[in-house]
Amino acid sequence: MYKRLLDYNDGEELEAVVLIKNSQLRHTKKGKLYLAMTFGDASGEIHGNFWDANNQDAATFSAGTIVELDGQREEYQGQPQIKIYGLRVVGPEEGYDLKQFIKSAPEKISDLKEEINQYVFEILNPTWNRLVRFLLKKWDQRFFDYPAGKSNHHAVRGGLVYHTVSMLRDAKGLANNYPQVDRSLLYAGCILHDMGKVLELTGPAATQYTTEGNLIGHLVLIDEQIMLAAQELKIDAESEDLLLLRHMVLAHHGKFEYGSPKLPALLEAELLHRIDDLDASIYAITNALQHTRPGDFTDNIMSQGGRKFYRPKVDEALSSSRKLE
Amino acid sequence: MYKRLLDYNDGEELEAVVLIKNSQLRHTKKGKLYLAMTFGDASGEIHGNFWDANNQDAATFSAGTIVELDGQREEYQGQPQIKIYGLRVVGPEEGYDLKQFIKSAPEKISDLKEEINQYVFEILNPTWNRLVRFLLKKWDQRFFDYPAGKSNHHAVRGGLVYHTVSMLRDAKGLANNYPQVDRSLLYAGCILHDMGKVLELTGPAATQYTTEGNLIGHLVLIDEQIMLAAQELKIDAESEDLLLLRHMVLAHHGKFEYGSPKLPALLEAELLHRIDDLDASIYAITNALQHTRPGDFTDNIMSQGGRKFYRPKVDEALSSSRKLE
Amino acid sequence: MYKRLLDYNDGEELEAVVLIKNSQLRHTKKGKLYLAMTFGDASGEIHGNFWDANNQDAATFSAGTIVELDGQREEYQGQPQIKIYGLRVVGPEEGYDLKQFIKSAPEKISDLKEEINQYVFEILNPTWNRLVRFLLKKWDQRFFDYPAGKSNHHAVRGGLVYHTVSMLRDAKGLANNYPQVDRSLLYAGCILHDMGKVLELTGPAATQYTTEGNLIGHLVLIDEQIMLAAQELKIDAESEDLLLLRHMVLAHHGKFEYGSPKLPALLEAELLHRIDDLDASIYAITNALQHTRPGDFTDNIMSQGGRKFYRPKVDEALSSSRKLE
Amino acid sequence: MYKRLLDYNDGEELEAVVLIKNSQLRHTKKGKLYLAMTFGDASGEIHGNFWDANNQDAATFSAGTIVELDGQREEYQGQPQIKIYGLRVVGPEEGYDLKQFIKSAPEKISDLKEEINQYVFEILNPTWNRLVRFLLKKWDQRFFDYPAGKSNHHAVRGGLVYHTVSMLRDAKGLANNYPQVDRSLLYAGCILHDMGKVLELTGPAATQYTTEGNLIGHLVLIDEQIMLAAQELKIDAESEDLLLLRHMVLAHHGKFEYGSPKLPALLEAELLHRIDDLDASIYAITNALQHTRPGDFTDNIMSQGGRKFYRPKVDEALSSSRKLE
Amino acid sequence: MYKRLLDYNDGEELEAVVLIKNSQLRHTKKGKLYLAMTFGDASGEIHGNFWDANNQDAATFSAGTIVELDGQREEYQGQPQIKIYGLRVVGPEEGYDLKQFIKSAPEKISDLKEEINQYVFEILNPTWNRLVRFLLKKWDQRFFDYPAGKSNHHAVRGGLVYHTVSMLRDAKGLANNYPQVDRSLLYAGCILHDMGKVLELTGPAATQYTTEGNLIGHLVLIDEQIMLAAQELKIDAESEDLLLLRHMVLAHHGKFEYGSPKLPALLEAELLHRIDDLDASIYAITNALQHTRPGDFTDNIMSQGGRKFYRPKVDEALSSSRKLE
Amino acid sequence: MYKRLLDYNDGEELEAVVLIKNSQLRHTKKGKLYLAMTFGDASGEIHGNFWDANNQDAATFSAGTIVELDGQREEYQGQPQIKIYGLRVVGPEEGYDLKQFIKSAPEKISDLKEEINQYVFEILNPTWNRLVRFLLKKWDQRFFDYPAGKSNHHAVRGGLVYHTVSMLRDAKGLANNYPQVDRSLLYAGCILHDMGKVLELTGPAATQYTTEGNLIGHLVLIDEQIMLAAQELKIDAESEDLLLLRHMVLAHHGKFEYGSPKLPALLEAELLHRIDDLDASIYAITNALQHTRPGDFTDNIMSQGGRKFYRPKVDEALSSSRKLE
Repeated sequence: MYKRLLDYNDGEELEAVVLIKNSQLRHTKKGKLYLAMTFGDASGEIHGNFWDANNQDAATFSAGTIVELDGQREEYQGQPQIKIYGLRVVGPEEGYDLKQFIKSAPEKISDLKEEINQYVFEILNPTWNRLVRFLLKKWDQRFFDYPAGKSNHHAVRGGLVYHTVSMLRDAKGLANNYPQVDRSLLYAGCILHDMGKVLELTGPAATQYTTEGNLIGHLVLIDEQIMLAAQELKIDAESEDLLLLRHMVLAHHGKFEYGSPKLPALLEAELLHRIDDLDASIYAITNALQHTRPGDFTDNIMSQGGRKFYRPKVDEALSSSRKLE
Repeated sequence: MYKRLLDYNDGEELEAVVLIKNSQLRHTKKGKLYLAMTFGDASGEIHGNFWDANNQDAATFSAGTIVELDGQREEYQGQPQIKIYGLRVVGPEEGYDLKQFIKSAPEKISDLKEEINQYVFEILNPTWNRLVRFLLKKWDQRFFDYPAGKSNHHAVRGGLVYHTVSMLRDAKGLANNYPQVDRSLLYAGCILHDMGKVLELTGPAATQYTTEGNLIGHLVLIDEQIMLAAQELKIDAESEDLLLLRHMVLAHHGKFEYGSPKLPALLEAELLHRIDDLDASIYAITNALQHTRPGDFTDNIMSQGGRKFYRPKVDEALSSSRKLE
Repeated sequence: MYKRLLDYNDGEELEAVVLIKNSQLRHTKKGKLYLAMTFGDASGEIHGNFWDANNQDAATFSAGTIVELDGQREEYQGQPQIKIYGLRVVGPEEGYDLKQFIKSAPEKISDLKEEINQYVFEILNPTWNRLVRFLLKKWDQRFFDYPAGKSNHHAVRGGLVYHTVSMLRDAKGLANNYPQVDRSLLYAGCILHDMGKVLELTGPAATQYTTEGNLIGHLVLIDEQIMLAAQELKIDAESEDLLLLRHMVLAHHGKFEYGSPKLPALLEAELLHRIDDLDASIYAITNALQHTRPGDFTDNIMSQGGRKFYRPKVDEALSSSRKLE
Repeated sequence: MYKRLLDYNDGEELEAVVLIKNSQLRHTKKGKLYLAMTFGDASGEIHGNFWDANNQDAATFSAGTIVELDGQREEYQGQPQIKIYGLRVVGPEEGYDLKQFIKSAPEKISDLKEEINQYVFEILNPTWNRLVRFLLKKWDQRFFDYPAGKSNHHAVRGGLVYHTVSMLRDAKGLANNYPQVDRSLLYAGCILHDMGKVLELTGPAATQYTTEGNLIGHLVLIDEQIMLAAQELKIDAESEDLLLLRHMVLAHHGKFEYGSPKLPALLEAELLHRIDDLDASIYAITNALQHTRPGDFTDNIMSQGGRKFYRPKVDEALSSSRKLE
Repeated sequence: MYKRLLDYNDGEELEAVVLIKNSQLRHTKKGKLYLAMTFGDASGEIHGNFWDANNQDAATFSAGTIVELDGQREEYQGQPQIKIYGLRVVGPEEGYDLKQFIKSAPEKISDLKEEINQYVFEILNPTWNRLVRFLLKKWDQRFFDYPAGKSNHHAVRGGLVYHTVSMLRDAKGLANNYPQVDRSLLYAGCILHDMGKVLELTGPAATQYTTEGNLIGHLVLIDEQIMLAAQELKIDAESEDLLLLRHMVLAHHGKFEYGSPKLPALLEAELLHRIDDLDASIYAITNALQHTRPGDFTDNIMSQGGRKFYRPKVDEALSSSRKLE
Repeated sequence: MYKRLLDYNDGEELEAVVLIKNSQLRHTKKGKLYLAMTFGDASGEIHGNFWDANNQDAATFSAGTIVELDGQREEYQGQPQIKIYGLRVVGPEEGYDLKQFIKSAPEKISDLKEEINQYVFEILNPTWNRLVRFLLKKWDQRFFDYPAGKSNHHAVRGGLVYHTVSMLRDAKGLANNYPQVDRSLLYAGCILHDMGKVLELTGPAATQYTTEGNLIGHLVLIDEQIMLAAQELKIDAESEDLLLLRHMVLAHHGKFEYGSPKLPALLEAELLHRIDDLDASIYAITNALQHTRPGDFTDNIMSQGGRKFYRPKVDEALSSSRKLE
């Protein structure tokens, strides 16, 4: 068995099967082409340049491809990189599986799927229930596999459904305290709010934004999906139920500058936005704290306005909690 | 023939057929209900309260209804109002037409329609051409009748198409100077960009926002229409042409805070946004200047960041130009 | 028995025992002094001017005083006011109680107090537990009587403890989903975070800001209280536990512009801020929706960035929920 | 003939006549002086450090000087640089011309000059006509030679006049659609708006800001020029025409944060600002797209708020348009 | 002798010689013209409408005119106004003087002039000294008569020179503590910084902005004056001294949004900006506190970001200080 | 005697006694630990990595420790660093003193202390006088030794008291011009405003923020100290004098975003904020100008909004002033 990518020492030659996480064709100032690449496996990531590349190489060695990497580990100022001798695409017949190379959510996908289904039962309004079931079925394969993002939070395989379920759990607790909240609408909103990411992102491995993701965005993408589904399900286009659900997904970023074309104007839309934001923040902060020693501050967490968080010297709750990434 | 609404003097009793421009059921502090109303005809608008109203009255005397108004003109601090004696809904058999009560765009609708069709011929890309024709046909009646807004600019009957044509004229001139611009995409974008207003607004008379308009907004409303049209026209949902056109309409407000879920990321989307903004500003400024004497400043123009504009003492161009409102 | 303040008709003379909610000595342009007053009872509030006032009158008829009001109801443009004939301070021997004139939180104070005590049991850390008990005891009378604010949210008698308990309920649900959270710290933070309002506000009736409230603010006021308590309880001034709790209260507004001198830098501080904000928002939105008819939008809610919220035509959850104010 | 600067390979020794684009005297941490230099010719630019420099060297080898460069090309992480062996100032007698080393606008200067003159004919107001002619003559040599900026847009030889003419073309088309616009004032504004750059910048080669440019800025610099010209031409200092033209140039950046001391308060000033901004944006976006492959996004364009623009897979208009830089 | 304007009681008829502080021709909704006027004398100001006015009336009864006012005092909601019976322009032969009707700075103008001259002696640099003397002489009459603003601060006769001298006193103290400051440049900057107000404002009585003030602003107006003066005095246009002084006045508002086309980039320019801002703030705050009782807060002071300031119960320093307005 | 740290040449081996200014334990990507260190003495600072470190090393070689450093100077791209051979902690018996390794304020501490005492005499209000004396005594050792910051301004030994005295000098001059200012309150505010830095920072050598500094901040830290002192001195907790002084320190940053929980609401609080800001700016600008040649601009000064300042070609005042750092 090969050693893992980060197990090699400085100067050591390596031959490893790895995933291309990122690959960009660039020009040197001199005008020559090369590929700026990032390789990864379960041990982490490492950078390397593939010199004298051409367009064909860029297509062959694109992000998401599993390759055999031959090279030598170099180090500069504490930053390791790979001097690449050669790359070879690993064929499906060689029995490697993408899942070996990427991190996964900390709960089992099958359990999360089961839990989602329980919440669907509690969506009593037929319009919302039918739309949710329709779209869960349509995007089933991707929804339970994709991450919730490229880097900020839940950027792991299954991260999308894990984030969704965590929000549903929050939603349930809050709905208990605030009986004025329409539970069906809130649950439907939780399940669909980020489902547009199955069109916005390329998938769980070497995640990138699609062109559609860049030009339309997951809020409008899922809104469009709801409209198309309604047409297929012959739900009245003028139905207020349909309107409310569309507003839920379109407003869930809560601020114009985060791409919501409308601000929350329903009690449930406001709550959905806050639960979404809260779950993402807790994930990001917890993840950063888990990589920090007690008594220290984390690095600046960009998704939290660049704030540093403090890990107290005594922190039993955090210490005994499940590791996120 | 009745005198017009603003032709009455202070203290004079009146009996006039007018349009209800606005009507809101309110509580006095004492808890009694009344309707705060605005009446209008071609001479302008005037306010009045209908006391001791009930829900039935609110439904009967809603915005957009033509009524016979009996009352007396009062004046306080230079602000006239109507003391209402009675209101009676005018039936269709009495031969009044909404158009008598509202202002219209300064060019003939039939000419503008003709001009739009000329531009449609120049949309060479078949996907965009088909979608534009489909939607022009679907919303024909409203598109050539609606205003472009409730108050800021082009808030007149036919204002939507007048604004659209004015933008197309600008687009043509600019495309001549910048041959790198895809003229077909730009024209298609101009024609569709505000078409969602046929769903966002209630119509040319006593214009209000619809609930759909408030919760979804005209950018996403037209995007949804494009998607549904594409499905009917069997245009490939993955088509880049479809994607580009959706981006055009979604990004045309140019800034997040104006409700664009994405910022312009196509040269043509940037241009569309700028032409839209420019045409609206020129309209608003010109309209304000036309109500100002040479040598004076306008009032604060809210849509232009509250700026006041100066009308020069000598201003032949403005003086000889067509009056907007 | 007297009629209630808002039961009088326009033009009717009145003689009512009411609470002075607001009273400000002002100059007319002519230089004469008068008191601009607001009177209230359980039926609502109404304005009136007390002409030719002097400093003595201002002291006698200050906010929070119960008076007998003789006058006549006038109305202008739908806004009622009282033409004041005379005012007389009602003495304690006449048996009126402030509580008759102000609204109260929708749950019983004794129940809320009981519930708080349950949460105190779950604060396992001895430093936090002792400080919370000490301060609950020190401010007992005010803490269970004061509102949580002057107008925005929970501006009712007992609003402070009602808001606190509602947050604790949210905290419990969220802590169940996020085991990495230190539950003791979060609960202690919830209980103390707004306790400084017992110094910032004047009390449940005719609530005003104190000078201390204006110059120091409730965040720093409770921080100072914690420090003084720690000194009395001989808790080490260098203790990290003490430090963490101080940070919790100082950072709970979450943003500099809301008066937090530090941004949340503990996972629990971030959560406290979000729960606080969420509970206040849900209260304000629900309260506004409860005063709006189904199918309509609320007025602009200032505390929610001026947004209007929509009350759906079908809204069983809201319709069947307890009325807040 | 020498090879061009970017034609050398890594490790190759070179001897080339080049232009110093930038040259800054710096201290190493050790306190030694060196010149951080950028060299350029028509093939592009490359960096190099001249070690152990002194003040004399800094004066001799300043930006804008043509030198013979002897050295060796090195490369680090894909970034080439020159290890400098020696530098020698090339004298005028050696027959080199600055124009060989810098890029030029994509249209012929003589044509642009001719076109400007046509527009001057259309400035009918004598005050504006005389001032424009006077200043065109005074700054003739620089105006038709300078770039419009240091880096953002039109940063090429002749860029200033190219930008000016392009704006005049836009202005003509828009004035046709909006007859209320004073064409003379708009044209005069277009021609003068950026003329202050002949004082703000050092020239077309190795463009830097002058001290005057940094401390006063081109808006006020041209305003001062207009005032001095008016004094020489004996134009009444109180003339409204003079006032309007000064406002045009002072307000043309359109926002305070871009250095306009006043916001546009004339219809023509608003239009001038928008045309200026539009022409600059189209230039910057087009230039970036021309360096991007179809189906890709550009890099972040800083002058456009850091946005990335998408180049569609099919883009005939762009592909067939003239290359800007 | 006439009673003063604010000495009349409600309902009393009056005949008073007063100054027109403001006069605007407006339309009633009915389309009739009237003048909305403000009258003033040393006792204060009062509003009144002159009905059925025409353009001739507007010209005759413009702001700054002394008139005999016949009418009756009315009062509504504590706001007095004048019901105008008639107006008559008071001729110069009747012996009234504008100064009787407006407030003045709290120090003697002749003393302030003397003090300025002392500071001019300390401007050792000949370029700055000559320019300051030239401009002080050119605008002598206005500079020692004008206010420093229309309303915010120093809006009294002589306010401009009073503000200037107060700043010079601050400048002297600070320059003593910071010897690195060029005292000559700072003093010259203080004296000239607001001198453009002699062109921006109409004068000490019924102060309005001139068109020049609105379209150019006092920063650029004084910069232009410096340039024209330099031309007359044959000061080299390229002189660095001239450049520094221009920068001082152009940057003195310190922020783009306050109309500075450049931010301070000289130590002395930074200091000038801060002294200007500080003196204006202290004036505005002091003035507000002097109209507030000990133990109370002022109203919101708009020029200070809407803050309210507290007047302590014991405040000997303030109580014993000179009244500003 | 050892050579000083920056006296070594590239490649030269060195053996020097230096201060550890910064020391952070980091992971290489490979997962190995190392210390990223900065060493300093009076000649300046230099960076170096201590490879294969462990937690013990991190504790031994922490910031603020004096060590003997053995290694070799390397240079890369003009940036020197130390290749570390070994480190040895220097014991107190070897006679080194921290003061040899750090820069000090440009005036003698004993003189500054004397000057502060003069100002204390002028604090006539007994509450403020007692509190100031108490806290000056309590923190005597640190207050006269600490810097005023980590990097922005007055980041030198004694910088805190130097900044304080400089502000008092400014305060005195301004109070002379504005007799309405309560001199006692202003002086007390100046002396205490930054005293919380003795708890916020670690000390004059290798200055870092303490955890308390990060979580509470020096504004609230000194407020707490005032409260505790008042308790010890038996000053009435309700005293208005106590309240005013607390407000002075809490509001002195002047803006919410700089961590003031309240904005200045006293004339003296406004003045304190401005003097603080002004003194810090002048220090930062002067320091930058002293490192710039006449005729050049400074680098971007981050604390001044990133502005660059110009050093005039003739600048006698600056040239002859005392060097700050």
